Amino acid sequence: MMNAISRLIKPRSVAVVGASADSSKTAGRPVAYLRKHGYTGAIYPVNPRVASIEGLPCYPDVSSLPSVPDVGIVLLGAERAHLAVQELAQLGTAAAIVLASGYSEIGAVGAQRQARLMEAAGDMRILGPNTIGVVNLTDHIVLSASGALEMGQFLAGSIGVVSQSGGILGSLLSRTAPRGIGLSKLISTGNEADLDLADYVDYLVGDEATSVIALYIESVRNPEKFRVAALKAASAGKPVVAFKIGRSEAGARAAVSHTGALAGADRMYDALFKQVGVIRAQTLDELLDIPAALATGRRLRGKRVAILTSTGGAGTLVSDSLGVSGFETPAPDADTAARLRALQTGDHAALDRNPIDVTLAGLRPDLLRGAIRALLASPNYDALTIIVGSSSLAMPELMAGAILECLPESDKPVIAYVSPHAPELVASLTQRGVPAFSAAESCTVALAGMLHSARWQAPANSAPAAPVDIAGLPAGSLDEAQAKQLFARFGVPCASESVVATPAEAERAARAFGGRVALKILSGQITHKSDAGGVAVNLESGQVGARLTAMKAEVQSKTGIAPQRFLVQEMVCGGTELILGMHRDPLGTAVLLGMGGVAAELFKDTTMRLLSPGAGLSHDVAVGMVRELKTWPLLDGFRGRPKADLDALARAIVAFSQMAAQLGERLVEAEINPLFVLPAGQGVRAADGVVVLADA
Amino acid sequence: MMNAISRLIKPRSVAVVGASADSSKTAGRPVAYLRKHGYTGAIYPVNPRVASIEGLPCYPDVSSLPSVPDVGIVLLGAERAHLAVQELAQLGTAAAIVLASGYSEIGAVGAQRQARLMEAAGDMRILGPNTIGVVNLTDHIVLSASGALEMGQFLAGSIGVVSQSGGILGSLLSRTAPRGIGLSKLISTGNEADLDLADYVDYLVGDEATSVIALYIESVRNPEKFRVAALKAASAGKPVVAFKIGRSEAGARAAVSHTGALAGADRMYDALFKQVGVIRAQTLDELLDIPAALATGRRLRGKRVAILTSTGGAGTLVSDSLGVSGFETPAPDADTAARLRALQTGDHAALDRNPIDVTLAGLRPDLLRGAIRALLASPNYDALTIIVGSSSLAMPELMAGAILECLPESDKPVIAYVSPHAPELVASLTQRGVPAFSAAESCTVALAGMLHSARWQAPANSAPAAPVDIAGLPAGSLDEAQAKQLFARFGVPCASESVVATPAEAERAARAFGGRVALKILSGQITHKSDAGGVAVNLESGQVGARLTAMKAEVQSKTGIAPQRFLVQEMVCGGTELILGMHRDPLGTAVLLGMGGVAAELFKDTTMRLLSPGAGLSHDVAVGMVRELKTWPLLDGFRGRPKADLDALARAIVAFSQMAAQLGERLVEAEINPLFVLPAGQGVRAADGVVVLADA
Repeated sequence: MMNAISRLIKPRSVAVVGASADSSKTAGRPVAYLRKHGYTGAIYPVNPRVASIEGLPCYPDVSSLPSVPDVGIVLLGAERAHLAVQELAQLGTAAAIVLASGYSEIGAVGAQRQARLMEAAGDMRILGPNTIGVVNLTDHIVLSASGALEMGQFLAGSIGVVSQSGGILGSLLSRTAPRGIGLSKLISTGNEADLDLADYVDYLVGDEATSVIALYIESVRNPEKFRVAALKAASAGKPVVAFKIGRSEAGARAAVSHTGALAGADRMYDALFKQVGVIRAQTLDELLDIPAALATGRRLRGKRVAILTSTGGAGTLVSDSLGVSGFETPAPDADTAARLRALQTGDHAALDRNPIDVTLAGLRPDLLRGAIRALLASPNYDALTIIVGSSSLAMPELMAGAILECLPESDKPVIAYVSPHAPELVASLTQRGVPAFSAAESCTVALAGMLHSARWQAPANSAPAAPVDIAGLPAGSLDEAQAKQLFARFGVPCASESVVATPAEAERAARAFGGRVALKILSGQITHKSDAGGVAVNLESGQVGARLTAMKAEVQSKTGIAPQRFLVQEMVCGGTELILGMHRDPLGTAVLLGMGGVAAELFKDTTMRLLSPGAGLSHDVAVGMVRELKTWPLLDGFRGRPKADLDALARAIVAFSQMAAQLGERLVEAEINPLFVLPAGQGVRAADGVVVLADA
Repeated sequence: MMNAISRLIKPRSVAVVGASADSSKTAGRPVAYLRKHGYTGAIYPVNPRVASIEGLPCYPDVSSLPSVPDVGIVLLGAERAHLAVQELAQLGTAAAIVLASGYSEIGAVGAQRQARLMEAAGDMRILGPNTIGVVNLTDHIVLSASGALEMGQFLAGSIGVVSQSGGILGSLLSRTAPRGIGLSKLISTGNEADLDLADYVDYLVGDEATSVIALYIESVRNPEKFRVAALKAASAGKPVVAFKIGRSEAGARAAVSHTGALAGADRMYDALFKQVGVIRAQTLDELLDIPAALATGRRLRGKRVAILTSTGGAGTLVSDSLGVSGFETPAPDADTAARLRALQTGDHAALDRNPIDVTLAGLRPDLLRGAIRALLASPNYDALTIIVGSSSLAMPELMAGAILECLPESDKPVIAYVSPHAPELVASLTQRGVPAFSAAESCTVALAGMLHSARWQAPANSAPAAPVDIAGLPAGSLDEAQAKQLFARFGVPCASESVVATPAEAERAARAFGGRVALKILSGQITHKSDAGGVAVNLESGQVGARLTAMKAEVQSKTGIAPQRFLVQEMVCGGTELILGMHRDPLGTAVLLGMGGVAAELFKDTTMRLLSPGAGLSHDVAVGMVRELKTWPLLDGFRGRPKADLDALARAIVAFSQMAAQLGERLVEAEINPLFVLPAGQGVRAADGVVVLADA
């Protein structure tokens, strides 16, 4: 038996509750759309005041229907929709589409209505409310009352689109056919009272007609379900591309640690997408550009792109854009250059450079084919970008014909940049398997998406960690010594230190360490120790006692609190300062690694990974985080520096993540700042830290 | 009398040398194009083998022409074009357009041809060679043989376009009319053997029909002329927008200093554009988006944008894009909200938020007008972005009419985002004064361009500096002490230091400074002192002698050179390290300021200013440079740090720039690294530096 979502997307029968006989009215549209697009299943209009609609018998109520429909489209307003939903549910309908707005999106009153709606639905699945519905282009089924889904032409293809905005779904649909981009299914998720984004992703992974999934996201409501669905898509070889709105929201600022300010809601999404292989589109256009390229199913194996052009300027434009994004445009190798020269394309052709300029061959299909073949065959290139110039406008099929003839001979990506305004040519090429773009940057972003998709691998799972004994864990804001003791329990090496109360104890402790020491107040109340005058570094042992006395007075005068306990800590020398923190928001719990000091804040040089429920990060993932830092060269021998102890750093990240995983919600905040990374073989040292624990 | 460029762009008569009677041939096009577009001046075809072309008498040679033409279009190949050019010049023709390629762009042989061509031209001005010509849409004059300029429709307007690529010029022309963007003049500069980019900018500044200038740049050949022309445009209130290709070129790496690697060719252009008020387009699309907005002549006074929408998703999309770029989208103030509520736009309208959602009013022109008026009148908004949804497609004039009726009532910018695929609507709005875009990012970039244009002010000129006595200046690579002596002569404060040769001298010098010192080898031969083991820091005076002996041995073993002289230098404490350098490339001489240490290299936290010939930077410009650094907060009291001595830093930058200005070409390289900036009132200290001088 088909599951409910499959029946929702491809119903054998549809009840339209509240259908109007007037097709110019919104309530008249669903029946009209179903018939117009060639729906072959049963349509049951439901309306007590009409006998028939468009020649179909109209039923007075849901209970009078001749059979149980797969789907009910509910056209009633928010005040009454739940009544129809209840009737449909009682009948055993698989799913209902509730189009009305006025639910949780308008606040408390609407949220109550939504709860009532869900209660009425029982086991029946709900699309919406506040949705514009579903368009199944594979099977010619339009389940919608929205004019937005009606505009423009439809073009069936292999890209499935799920959108949390109905308006944007309409916009995407209207923009695809004119570009030659074909879609399989379009789903407007609405308020996601029941079925959500992840459910539809999961469905599309199983949908044979869909090979690429494009998502317009406002908010992932169930991150774990989304993660599972996205990973399932990745293993099925169906790339997922997402455009996520809300990038300009300010990051939530945590109370004690810096991690919150550095993390931010949008960077959490970055981490999520990265971990599950979702390609992030940066603009709505990219949400079409990248899937259009991926839908060809061709695989981009590397960064070397041949650019074949018959017009100089545009070739340079594309080459420049590719170069800015890290693609390479090497000159043809000797064999390929010889093959090109053998074509005798004329005097001014530039065949030993890339862009490969075949100006005079632009209008000779045999030469074009020869050049395309030579470039596709070259082991020096991973992809081919063809520049379509204005000379092709007069004879569009000449260029297109040459390209299409060569296409089956290679599985390398072939895309086109169309330099003049020529929307029909763009559409025609794209539709026939050569994704064509009218912006150089779109070519670049499409290839980058293909490369991402080909190279992405699911992160290694972490080995299960033996639980750490956390008996006797205090609650509340830990002082620095307690925090580091907690880190140490989980295996993060910490700087040596002694807790002292008097000048004499301090000097004794300092002498015991040898070398220079740092002196800090130890207080659960004062979290910003430096601001309070409670930190002194680089002290000789003989200075420590006097400094303690002075510090006590200064802190008291600044904060009103006389510190009773102090920390004497070995100075950690010759290391690089990092910050390692934990951040939690509705998307989950993440570990953040950043360059310490000012780099993290002024340059946002940080990277994050979300934790899977209950599990820490693997060593490989931790190593990957470190290498992602812009300041990674500092740890890797930059300008004669010693290489840092990457292995120890990765182990510390893993240990910290296991702490976050084991403590779960009990860990409110945790941050090591700074974490000193010493040269290879010398390990890492947590030199300061913050922990806030909830009550057990 | 009109000058030669004016006669070139708007000729009263045109000779077409090498014209063909067959309009399907390239040589037949110029006469055909002139007539087709309605040229009203005299056309003189020149061809000894034909009696008439398109009914016009054809002349056997240039000397037979009935009068002196303003312009000669030369259709001959590169081998023969100079002959026609010479004849035209002898006749007194104002300017010739040489279309042929095969000149300097193909190498040495072509460069010789180009020199011969210029000799033949004498005083006559040349457009090209290797150009596709000129299109003067204001006056309906097409001077070209290129099919690229023939494609598509033409739309006259106020944007003048100059392109160093003919193909791109054709692409831009073909893309404008379909978007409703009108152009005044299009000029393909070709090889710029004579007239160059700057000449055409200068012309367009004086052209009444042009209000915005758009440039496609491969390379500015005469930076000083360009600077003058761009500043002239700025004072005339004609914004210049430029797209510059070549962004992915690797920066030239200088031999001794880091400055060259940090500067790079593309960043020099950034500096140039910034200093002359040129708005830099980041994509070819932006080279149309930004001018389209600027062509309205409206002035954007701030960053607060109202978004009026009748479709939720697209409003959020635009708001998000604006937010990412630093625009603000505040909610309506109380008065405006009240005015909006008074319109009674219906239940679900969201009038107290921004985007201002008037869903149900979307189809009622009176309500739309009311909302637009209220938002334009609000002192809380500097601009209005209107979202055109799919509901407008059925009645495009309803929305357009409402907008256009309100437009004259305010001088604030009003732009539109068209959410569905609706190219005709985009074109129609744009053409009628409401720049419309089909990408949210285009709205943002258009407003950002308007803001840049409204806020830009020419940088303050520097006060002329009294020349510094540079008698006895050495040549070649200076040693560290000599370099700092040179900096000091120009007024850059340097760290105190003594040159010593023996351990005893070193200790004596160290004791004289008090405190800790640095010890470095002093050598004109060894530039990378650290790598050679020739730097020790933080030494106590008692350690210096022994360290000198050890250093001498280490450097000798590493380099084979036994250093004879050493520098004992006071340790500069408590400051921030910057780098201050000079960079020269074909675009000019620039001063580069960067955060020192690794920030400059890993984060590219640097800023540059080009020097005007012979003049240093002004104090205001220097202050502006410092504030532009991403790490500026570090100098401005970040997290309780002391504020740095900004004034002293700016004076040091000015002094350094004056050194570069006075020494000119003689200064091959110069860099202070590090330049320590101390807390306010304590000045700056150059602690190390590099200077390479050419022979006087």
